Amino acid sequence: MSVIYQRVALIGLGLIAGSMAHAMRRGGLAGEIVGTARSAETRKIAAEIGLCDRIVDTAAEAVMGADLVVLCVPPGAMGAVAAEIAPHLAQGACVSDVGSVKRDVISQVGPHIPAGVHFVPAHPLAGTEHSGPRAGFAELFDNRYVLLTPEADTDPAATAKLRAFWEGCGARVEEMDADHHDLVLAVTSHTPHLIAYTMVGVADDLRRVTDSEVIKYSAAGFRDFTRIAASDPTMWRDVFLTNKEATLEILGRFTEELFALQRAIRRGDGEHLHAYFTRTRAIRRGIIEAGQDTDAPDFGRVKVKREPTAG
Amino acid sequence: MSVIYQRVALIGLGLIAGSMAHAMRRGGLAGEIVGTARSAETRKIAAEIGLCDRIVDTAAEAVMGADLVVLCVPPGAMGAVAAEIAPHLAQGACVSDVGSVKRDVISQVGPHIPAGVHFVPAHPLAGTEHSGPRAGFAELFDNRYVLLTPEADTDPAATAKLRAFWEGCGARVEEMDADHHDLVLAVTSHTPHLIAYTMVGVADDLRRVTDSEVIKYSAAGFRDFTRIAASDPTMWRDVFLTNKEATLEILGRFTEELFALQRAIRRGDGEHLHAYFTRTRAIRRGIIEAGQDTDAPDFGRVKVKREPTAG
Repeated sequence: MSVIYQRVALIGLGLIAGSMAHAMRRGGLAGEIVGTARSAETRKIAAEIGLCDRIVDTAAEAVMGADLVVLCVPPGAMGAVAAEIAPHLAQGACVSDVGSVKRDVISQVGPHIPAGVHFVPAHPLAGTEHSGPRAGFAELFDNRYVLLTPEADTDPAATAKLRAFWEGCGARVEEMDADHHDLVLAVTSHTPHLIAYTMVGVADDLRRVTDSEVIKYSAAGFRDFTRIAASDPTMWRDVFLTNKEATLEILGRFTEELFALQRAIRRGDGEHLHAYFTRTRAIRRGIIEAGQDTDAPDFGRVKVKREPTAG
Repeated sequence: MSVIYQRVALIGLGLIAGSMAHAMRRGGLAGEIVGTARSAETRKIAAEIGLCDRIVDTAAEAVMGADLVVLCVPPGAMGAVAAEIAPHLAQGACVSDVGSVKRDVISQVGPHIPAGVHFVPAHPLAGTEHSGPRAGFAELFDNRYVLLTPEADTDPAATAKLRAFWEGCGARVEEMDADHHDLVLAVTSHTPHLIAYTMVGVADDLRRVTDSEVIKYSAAGFRDFTRIAASDPTMWRDVFLTNKEATLEILGRFTEELFALQRAIRRGDGEHLHAYFTRTRAIRRGIIEAGQDTDAPDFGRVKVKREPTAG
């Protein structure tokens, strides 16, 4: 237990901020945790469950005297929050964020950061399908990566301190250029999410296959898509609007490959299909070996015992 | 414990057949389990681990005196196996299969079934990313669906008996028209698999993002695609070649929707994206409520403790 920041202000109190609060307490990382959210209902729930030491009504109030301020709002809202808190930031404070897109957030937030305040953009790669102040838990970041994307002029000491903080939350921390981050995430997260949303939308929209059938028989593969297609719509709208270029590039590659496979199916080219399906197994093995997933049946899911309501 | 078939012959000894053997023993469903596989190595392993009561060298030998014969080979191999066993089938026996495609398997197998033998096509919706005779386990079918697709002239008593057998293996059994099955599975399984294979292939093929980065940061969404993209290449090749029409139809719908979302991203149409992402959440809720998945964080995965080898 070693305090890294005397006062941490969390702006926005969803899954990530809530989990940060729990993880900070587990690790004894913060002298005081102050939280705020735009919605009065969210603030009320957070106060009721004691999520932070103090819940205040405005972001301006939350950041006063804080030596770490973390923007935990959707990517599209970062600039407005930065403008609001800027006049109230303490000298020497560090401002960070948890946005899934980095270049756009940097251009939204950066211009508002006053002299004598550090800005270290960050992105914890962790989440569940739940959102809101009740969704957080201390273990969310354990063994997960947090990517820091400091700019050339970022103070290395501020970056090092934020790294220690996230390591205290259980995470593995890496540094990366913001543009490269956005491309990597377009591949590993943004495009997969868009594809999953699309597949679920198609299934929902078919006249000849009922929703009840889709749900009952989802364990055959479809189910794996639905978890990520249940993520927060506002956040994901903002991700695609703010990481437009990289997402469209990867989507272009994706449809190109999909058309090649579609053509192989139409022509009955089994050799092409078999070679493609063999190649992709290697990546899966890499993920298991890197400890980023389990190969236990059903993802190691606990067997669900409830009776079905559908069908 | 009640014996349903006196002698069950399993043709092919992969994940599904192996799990059937374990489940039959757990439920005491078979007087004797006879198994065979084309590969001598597979037969050797199956014999070593005592997977069946008896392992024999040929499918012809395996089916002799069996009152249930289950074809557990890839969809493309069903016709050849049916031709081989046909002269050796016992009068009154039931032939079934576990193929992921039904119409094509019926047209491959049906013509070989002699008078006095019943053919009841079946498809258990269960699997893991592992294959081979060691991969099976008794619980694979628990709470999972098995779809039977009898034809109009199938003996109802033979269908009822096979249903009781699969229920004894822990499954929920439904009956469905073979063509409808192929469409439902194109939506819930075949197209999702093709899309997952494609996404993993794209990630593997990018020059500017390394495999090591893809693997390290896969928990952000990509990981969920890799499990199904690690399935057996031969089986999946056969699935796409034998369920060509339905898969191409659903793929067409998929690319149509994907292009609409791509266009919304390019034009910055946040309203369209938000509405789409909101609609898809309902299907996820249905799946959780139907007991076909868990909403626990990380799919209820047990936390992986190993250190990373990548990076």
